[in-house]
Amino acid sequence: MTTRTIKLNCDMGESFGAWKMGADDLVMPYVDMANIACGFHASDPHVMSKTIDMALQHDVMIGAHPGYPDLQGFGRRSMAFSDEEICEILIYQIGALKALCESKNAELSYVKPHGALYNDMMRDKEIFRAVVDAVSVFNVPLMILASSNNQDYLDIADSYDVPLLFEAFADRTYLANGSLTPRSMPNAVLKTEDAILSQVQQIAKYGKVTSADGFVIPIEADTLCVHGDNDEAIALIAKIRDQLDI
Amino acid sequence: MTTRTIKLNCDMGESFGAWKMGADDLVMPYVDMANIACGFHASDPHVMSKTIDMALQHDVMIGAHPGYPDLQGFGRRSMAFSDEEICEILIYQIGALKALCESKNAELSYVKPHGALYNDMMRDKEIFRAVVDAVSVFNVPLMILASSNNQDYLDIADSYDVPLLFEAFADRTYLANGSLTPRSMPNAVLKTEDAILSQVQQIAKYGKVTSADGFVIPIEADTLCVHGDNDEAIALIAKIRDQLDI
Amino acid sequence: MTTRTIKLNCDMGESFGAWKMGADDLVMPYVDMANIACGFHASDPHVMSKTIDMALQHDVMIGAHPGYPDLQGFGRRSMAFSDEEICEILIYQIGALKALCESKNAELSYVKPHGALYNDMMRDKEIFRAVVDAVSVFNVPLMILASSNNQDYLDIADSYDVPLLFEAFADRTYLANGSLTPRSMPNAVLKTEDAILSQVQQIAKYGKVTSADGFVIPIEADTLCVHGDNDEAIALIAKIRDQLDI
Amino acid sequence: MTTRTIKLNCDMGESFGAWKMGADDLVMPYVDMANIACGFHASDPHVMSKTIDMALQHDVMIGAHPGYPDLQGFGRRSMAFSDEEICEILIYQIGALKALCESKNAELSYVKPHGALYNDMMRDKEIFRAVVDAVSVFNVPLMILASSNNQDYLDIADSYDVPLLFEAFADRTYLANGSLTPRSMPNAVLKTEDAILSQVQQIAKYGKVTSADGFVIPIEADTLCVHGDNDEAIALIAKIRDQLDI
Repeated sequence: MTTRTIKLNCDMGESFGAWKMGADDLVMPYVDMANIACGFHASDPHVMSKTIDMALQHDVMIGAHPGYPDLQGFGRRSMAFSDEEICEILIYQIGALKALCESKNAELSYVKPHGALYNDMMRDKEIFRAVVDAVSVFNVPLMILASSNNQDYLDIADSYDVPLLFEAFADRTYLANGSLTPRSMPNAVLKTEDAILSQVQQIAKYGKVTSADGFVIPIEADTLCVHGDNDEAIALIAKIRDQLDI
Repeated sequence: MTTRTIKLNCDMGESFGAWKMGADDLVMPYVDMANIACGFHASDPHVMSKTIDMALQHDVMIGAHPGYPDLQGFGRRSMAFSDEEICEILIYQIGALKALCESKNAELSYVKPHGALYNDMMRDKEIFRAVVDAVSVFNVPLMILASSNNQDYLDIADSYDVPLLFEAFADRTYLANGSLTPRSMPNAVLKTEDAILSQVQQIAKYGKVTSADGFVIPIEADTLCVHGDNDEAIALIAKIRDQLDI
Repeated sequence: MTTRTIKLNCDMGESFGAWKMGADDLVMPYVDMANIACGFHASDPHVMSKTIDMALQHDVMIGAHPGYPDLQGFGRRSMAFSDEEICEILIYQIGALKALCESKNAELSYVKPHGALYNDMMRDKEIFRAVVDAVSVFNVPLMILASSNNQDYLDIADSYDVPLLFEAFADRTYLANGSLTPRSMPNAVLKTEDAILSQVQQIAKYGKVTSADGFVIPIEADTLCVHGDNDEAIALIAKIRDQLDI
Repeated sequence: MTTRTIKLNCDMGESFGAWKMGADDLVMPYVDMANIACGFHASDPHVMSKTIDMALQHDVMIGAHPGYPDLQGFGRRSMAFSDEEICEILIYQIGALKALCESKNAELSYVKPHGALYNDMMRDKEIFRAVVDAVSVFNVPLMILASSNNQDYLDIADSYDVPLLFEAFADRTYLANGSLTPRSMPNAVLKTEDAILSQVQQIAKYGKVTSADGFVIPIEADTLCVHGDNDEAIALIAKIRDQLDI
């Protein structure tokens, strides 16, 4: 048995009021890190509170998963905020979750932005800087996409003393340059369970991934992002968990 | 010159997006405590951030001023939340403001609920208990209405180790039992500057107030609530400040 | 085969953004009237639009289902609106749905308030009057709860030339006075399929219901409210449909 | 006295809940067309209702002024909606305002999109098409920016049988190609009252404007957009009104 060195992270607490999303209770036992939505794109104070309880029960690390203030769009639409405003909406959301954690003696362990904000942060260094600035208030690491130019991100984060966590995707394919195959392309997502489990194995054990066009490239990842959207997805998480625990 | 023993508190940071409310910059120099709205009934992360800056600049204590989630109703409509939910929406809002404070090395010094939530808390001991429970997470005092039955509130707050701050009103009249004259009654509000300044003097210097029907009753207040809604109101705050500083 | 004289109505279009609620596509074939949420307590313009399409496809009557502006509380919390404001928020929501109907050559056929607003309207004649006032703008009937004092409601509605539709519940028990057994009481809800189908039969065919304490009382209902919350509930709707169609 | 041939339009009803914006009561007497916000970027059912009353009182035409659903950003941030969704959020908002108009026997006379949606519509023909599609439901004209390529817009609008109204700006400068000088440039806005009144005269009387670099170009405008943000702005509207009425 090897030491488990790569962690599974999953978006959690995405229900809102009377609307349920995901089966957090079924996913929680299999993951290491719960990215909990903070009320701007999903979740509400009650859902956040219950999700923290669940994470505590399963000894899962709690991360803040802040997004753009757009419930109807689920934070998937980019919005034109100034860098200062991005910093402010992040501090607001992370602070809210952190306080709910503290009320239960739980710890906030990291931050991972959501949806369009995540994409904007990876695409635009000024937005990334605003995100890092916000995260620096909380003395926790920021989780971002593992990619070919990690160094640029590390340099910025270092200047704010913010550690980075890099995540890879179990079910997305990669280009030879280390970036994700855009979703607009037909082969962006791995279709079979075998392909996914094989990629998980390759990333977790060897720190490599085979790109869609056949190149074996290095990928440094601290964590793998998984999704618990439906029964099939949850069954797959269980298998990925088994694979990592061998 | 006597020591200033009673503080002035004022609701602040009640603008929202493009909408301005109040003249916080004009009021801030005269008050001791700024009750900053937390985004549920008024304010937004940017307004909160700017209001903290202003409070820091004038060395004014910062309090969280959380309310019901009802922007259109400005938190003035009571909403049927469970005690658990009230606790959660308070921790969320206070935590958000506290984090914005921490990002500027400012301190969160107290909590004062807003509008319908404030009234509900004073009226219903179970709601009061939920509020105290939330505030206990932050190790700061809770500001409530000074009234004839302070002891009941003190007992509950003590059981959560939450100190209470009592506020009186400069411009509201009192009944002989120490409660505020209901706004539905014609003489609920003091109409003249002289009457207001005289009541301020009586409360601040002697810990007493003359009720609307002529009884001199004791009132223990740590702070006086003032309003900065318009030019006239701000001019009055300046005079109250002068009065207290003599 | 008898003429179908009682209609089935069901709340529809209660999804919101990325959150799905109900299985409208499975329920639509069995009902006669779709109460479509209008964006204040549930739904959004896109969901409303798709639900209208579905109703058109199955030749189901479309009703506006407006509620209090409280997405997080799903319109289930009473909110203190003035009568004038209640009228305004209803006209706003009904007008929005009606315009979406017109864009598809669909007709708006009635209005049924939702949740806390429905309860408030049945409880408070001034609120009922405000609702009727709003509905009168659209020349359609208002659906309310069939009860022992229908006449009071009819008198008010008549003065605004608004027809009323009365609804009964397939799965709720009644008191001897014709009102619903409060949900706080143990026998408020019929537990077995047989009991429900029997009550449906009694209401639809004989215009009577047997109260929880054994009295056969008259109940005049134009429509029966059914719920499509889960697979079991949908299967029951199908059976009720069969029952009515015999 | 000549016939008034160019109309003044102004954004109205931009207050929200407890927040006031603009002095609609002071502006209304001077303008011909009130663009009333519809609750997504500003306004609420009560504000809309009161603004319709005011327009009726002053015999001012009522236009729907729909925007992106972003109160905190006042609809000034572009949001990534599909064309279908843009059409739906427009029909929703226009329908809501139209129903409030009908409740007062007022008429909805035109539609003018707000802020980022207005800019997106002028920039992107597919979005423009979605807007026209929505407006076609209401049999009223759509107001857009008068520019050098009016024909393209006219062709699209014609195919939906939607008339267009073109607006020019009293206080913005124009480029030689008939487009507005971008706000990023120093001379984008006319600074003096004389310059503004002179431009108004030139547009209203001669259908021409002198571009920032000195070319006299034709501009076909049905209406001039004015702003009532403060006392100075309102005084200017009064003067523009006088100028047009000579």
